[in-house]
Amino acid sequence: MKMSELSQRSGVSVATIKYYLRNGLLAEGVKSSPNQAHYDDGHVQRLRLIRALVEVGRLPLGAVREVLGHIDRPPAETLDLLAVAQDAVTSPPGEPVDQAPAFDLLRRLGWSANLEIAEGQADGDIAVAALASALGGLADAGLELPEDLLDRFGAAMLDVARAEVAGIPTDSPTAAVRYVVLGTVLSEPVLLALRRLAQREASGERFATQPD
Amino acid sequence: MKMSELSQRSGVSVATIKYYLRNGLLAEGVKSSPNQAHYDDGHVQRLRLIRALVEVGRLPLGAVREVLGHIDRPPAETLDLLAVAQDAVTSPPGEPVDQAPAFDLLRRLGWSANLEIAEGQADGDIAVAALASALGGLADAGLELPEDLLDRFGAAMLDVARAEVAGIPTDSPTAAVRYVVLGTVLSEPVLLALRRLAQREASGERFATQPD
Repeated sequence: MKMSELSQRSGVSVATIKYYLRNGLLAEGVKSSPNQAHYDDGHVQRLRLIRALVEVGRLPLGAVREVLGHIDRPPAETLDLLAVAQDAVTSPPGEPVDQAPAFDLLRRLGWSANLEIAEGQADGDIAVAALASALGGLADAGLELPEDLLDRFGAAMLDVARAEVAGIPTDSPTAAVRYVVLGTVLSEPVLLALRRLAQREASGERFATQPD
Repeated sequence: MKMSELSQRSGVSVATIKYYLRNGLLAEGVKSSPNQAHYDDGHVQRLRLIRALVEVGRLPLGAVREVLGHIDRPPAETLDLLAVAQDAVTSPPGEPVDQAPAFDLLRRLGWSANLEIAEGQADGDIAVAALASALGGLADAGLELPEDLLDRFGAAMLDVARAEVAGIPTDSPTAAVRYVVLGTVLSEPVLLALRRLAQREASGERFATQPD
């Protein structure tokens, strides 16, 4: 197909497609003349994937490039999958924050795998730093969540994570990277949207008025 | 205190404080001379709150203004709290999306309060639209989550939401709005950070190697 049809089928403008081509996020088409190239379904899929990472995952273009790199060249060990996926999509906090409350929570939850990983890193662990930064944001705003609520957050997330990890395909590294990277980034908006709907559901249970 | 001390104690630059003053997000100080004003602890608290909403909650300034407005002038009915909090922090999807998968999921979860609210809105419901958009993003990227995983997402979020809603203070509307609005916005990064740590925990459980 020509560029115009590629644009129509992927929902990405011609100007943006040209930008992705120049930056190597999208492979060149097959030249049919000096000024024209042909594109195939692989290009459509790739553009839909980029669009989802940008629009749904809200990733900056640098992170999109990194995610695509891991999908194109998956690491050899399944064990490394989560690490590369998480590094690609986690930005370290802008300034140093007190990590003690994050470590307290991890200890209370009994998450020994995380404690072991984090304590083994001399420069600190960005996943723990992200939690510390989020907890610090609440404290700065004068809103400290009670311990039992944080514990329940942790238990609910472990339940979600166990179901996700159980579904990681182990037969193909490419499929596994795709599942982990996209699953992590693209399902965050699903979780947050469900949480808001769940709040409405729970609020209805607590504050429902009797019909007149 | 003077502007310079206010800046130091709140962690917000003088230029940004002046911008918030001009835009009415922060109340004027008490003039001590034509060119100088004094500020108090209330100003420090307010700036920390704005900073948390911008940096942790990643809200655009328009949404920050709306959130502050609800905290300053809370609605009379506790029942309306969640609605105003959610409207302030939810942006409607940029383009129309197929809402059928979102309604299917709500029906499967048996979330009748949401179905009733959504079906009563002629222009559609932005909370359901946000879920539909998130599910559409996954589908566009070629990654559909299995139904049982989505069901588990929903169950985990309802568990979280019930604990949150149970903690809403009912004695003071101001305290309630503060809890709901800040809790919704500022605890999202906590949940997402915990989820990533939980994935690492669950991954350790599944893929742990035996020690040599």
